Amino acid sequence: MSENRMMSLSALIKARDSGKANPELMVALSRDAIARKDADIKAFAHVCAEPAISTEGPLAGVAIGIKDIFDTFDQPTSYGSPAYAGHRPKTDAALVDLARRQGATIIGKTVSTEFAFLNPAATVNPHNHAHTPGGSSSGSAAAIAAGMIPAATGTQTGGSVIRPASYCGIAGYKPSFRLLPVTGIKHFAPSLDTVGLFAAGVADVALLAALLTGRDLGTDDEPAEPAKIRVGLYRCALLEGADPEMRAALFKAADKAADAGFDVGEIGEPEAMAMARGAHSDIQNFEAGLVCGSDLALFGNQMSEILAGTLNHGQAISPQAYDAARKLAKRGRAATRALFGEVDILLTPAAPGAAPLGLETTGDPRFNKLWTLMGTPVVSIPGFRDANGMPLGIQAVARFGRDKTLLSVAAALEQAYRA
Amino acid sequence: MSENRMMSLSALIKARDSGKANPELMVALSRDAIARKDADIKAFAHVCAEPAISTEGPLAGVAIGIKDIFDTFDQPTSYGSPAYAGHRPKTDAALVDLARRQGATIIGKTVSTEFAFLNPAATVNPHNHAHTPGGSSSGSAAAIAAGMIPAATGTQTGGSVIRPASYCGIAGYKPSFRLLPVTGIKHFAPSLDTVGLFAAGVADVALLAALLTGRDLGTDDEPAEPAKIRVGLYRCALLEGADPEMRAALFKAADKAADAGFDVGEIGEPEAMAMARGAHSDIQNFEAGLVCGSDLALFGNQMSEILAGTLNHGQAISPQAYDAARKLAKRGRAATRALFGEVDILLTPAAPGAAPLGLETTGDPRFNKLWTLMGTPVVSIPGFRDANGMPLGIQAVARFGRDKTLLSVAAALEQAYRA
Repeated sequence: MSENRMMSLSALIKARDSGKANPELMVALSRDAIARKDADIKAFAHVCAEPAISTEGPLAGVAIGIKDIFDTFDQPTSYGSPAYAGHRPKTDAALVDLARRQGATIIGKTVSTEFAFLNPAATVNPHNHAHTPGGSSSGSAAAIAAGMIPAATGTQTGGSVIRPASYCGIAGYKPSFRLLPVTGIKHFAPSLDTVGLFAAGVADVALLAALLTGRDLGTDDEPAEPAKIRVGLYRCALLEGADPEMRAALFKAADKAADAGFDVGEIGEPEAMAMARGAHSDIQNFEAGLVCGSDLALFGNQMSEILAGTLNHGQAISPQAYDAARKLAKRGRAATRALFGEVDILLTPAAPGAAPLGLETTGDPRFNKLWTLMGTPVVSIPGFRDANGMPLGIQAVARFGRDKTLLSVAAALEQAYRA
Repeated sequence: MSENRMMSLSALIKARDSGKANPELMVALSRDAIARKDADIKAFAHVCAEPAISTEGPLAGVAIGIKDIFDTFDQPTSYGSPAYAGHRPKTDAALVDLARRQGATIIGKTVSTEFAFLNPAATVNPHNHAHTPGGSSSGSAAAIAAGMIPAATGTQTGGSVIRPASYCGIAGYKPSFRLLPVTGIKHFAPSLDTVGLFAAGVADVALLAALLTGRDLGTDDEPAEPAKIRVGLYRCALLEGADPEMRAALFKAADKAADAGFDVGEIGEPEAMAMARGAHSDIQNFEAGLVCGSDLALFGNQMSEILAGTLNHGQAISPQAYDAARKLAKRGRAATRALFGEVDILLTPAAPGAAPLGLETTGDPRFNKLWTLMGTPVVSIPGFRDANGMPLGIQAVARFGRDKTLLSVAAALEQAYRA
């Protein structure tokens, strides 16, 4: 529907480092794009009027959008909830502070659904404004896809990074659990809440992660030995329920991986992993009832039905049922470790299909919940589209801690998919 | 020096349930004791003027002191820092909300050292006002020991629950990692920050944990089969550096455990666990630099030297050094699991000795850091004293998740020690 030229972080950094752009100009590009586009896209909950622009640090000049469940000391932080309208935290979330220390410009707060849960917000999908951008990191994904900013943060408790990335045709990266700090986000389920990142493409999001953390996560220097990388098309039972176009994209993704020289096969889902997926909801809802209990008590009358209902339900789950679910998760993690003895990268749909029509739902996280619970690193690789031109993301998964391998393989696959 | 009759939670609950006390009276007892004693002890940062008293719930009438790094929506929360003087969070920390839902009365906020780190606060040791009560949960431990309240919360990142419990002659319980929710505390090192509880004795603190969580953690119903419980005196290298009176207390503790019928032996410290202990500081300080980075940037000029210095030092630790420390911790956890195949309960000093003279330091957490990093449940068992009458705590440790066994064995040992 609309023409969106995305801002590539890698290209911007290269332009800056070669003297073709300076931090002032880089931030001005984003401010201008937001001013032109955001009235339609509604990706921002708040745009900073006079954002600090640093001339030093690896992220100098990079305008980053911060999901509005991360605390910011200088900008309102609403957690997507009317109960927190105009809320002003005393400090930045750890990741926001880290981004500032690396030179980034906190350009504004991107729209989150209420408490990063399922109640939809007003943001639209830049590829077709009648479709959802996904959630809960709706604003971050849409702002990247609409070409307003080159970098954004998100969080995932079910599928809130990978699903909107898939729907918006961008790269979403959910790192290994706790690789990025969660302190200062509005928690929903602490054993699941994972901070993630968005950028235009996989190399961009890998560069963002590398520059933020000082870790060796970039994709430039990876020696290409695809024949030694075992890529498995993940044959989970859910696959049968995916849209035909998504299934077709997944098989094409595996074929193109083989064409690119990777060692490609198929791999079934161990029973213990299927059972772990089934345990996600009890774990999430029990923890949400606990950590959002004070919100329910004080602000329950300002909550959506789906949020208040889930919190009440969570408080009714017994510790014994929660422990039983955690035991299933633990078994699932052991099975996941064993599985990654046989394969390096799993490919699976990032969502059941393209972004659903309408804004009444943010779509379905069923393909994402297991990997959030397992704590494994995941990237949504863009490149495929359905017959209507709506994006279809392929989800690549690696063993816990193998973020660099994941990102470098995913970057190579993305090139193959776009070719 | 002063006579302190402690309030036993078990006795209070029994009196309530048999109709001999009602919630109003129970709370009035604590309000009265605080009014009489706290000018000397300085355990409270804030006392609630009109605390809500519930007549329902398992903790109805229980006046609980909340360490001042837990958020409370109705009472100021200073995190022990002048930068947060008068700070009013929007909501309660998850544990505070849980306590309210179970009927407890949030009687006030107990003094924490600054950000729950090492800079001492003004609280004194009820057993001798010239001695430190320990830290960082100084106020909670002192308020219990002085007989002002029957229950209090704490947190431990190094030794901030077990050490003050030992110094104040009360029971401190650091549960298995994440058994109690941390959301809404001021984090210092999230992979270490553990919520704990204080009460007069082990049975009291076990009852508090059981009534708070709805879990089967009480010590009443445990069938006594001590001969089947393997208790090991933990022969770590640190032991040589402990005060002679503490070493003597530990050996006596093991002897009394044998007298009580437990299967007692000695057990050496695996090298991997000693190395894990050495990794604690890098993990703590790296994480503190990350999660308190915004505080350092905004409020560094209001920080103590030791806090600001530690945060600056933490920010200079490389991700590679942090990862190396985490790897040592992981190896230590594997060694700990293996060790608990040979033994059920380890006994070790809760601190190097009795509370040091003076208020310039909160004492030394060297005996506690390993168990915080391992995530194992720990109880400080009171009962022993040095020649000056100052308390000496014995630290009992069990395998991750074996909190009930730990508490029931510790309760039996406490009886033996007091006998």
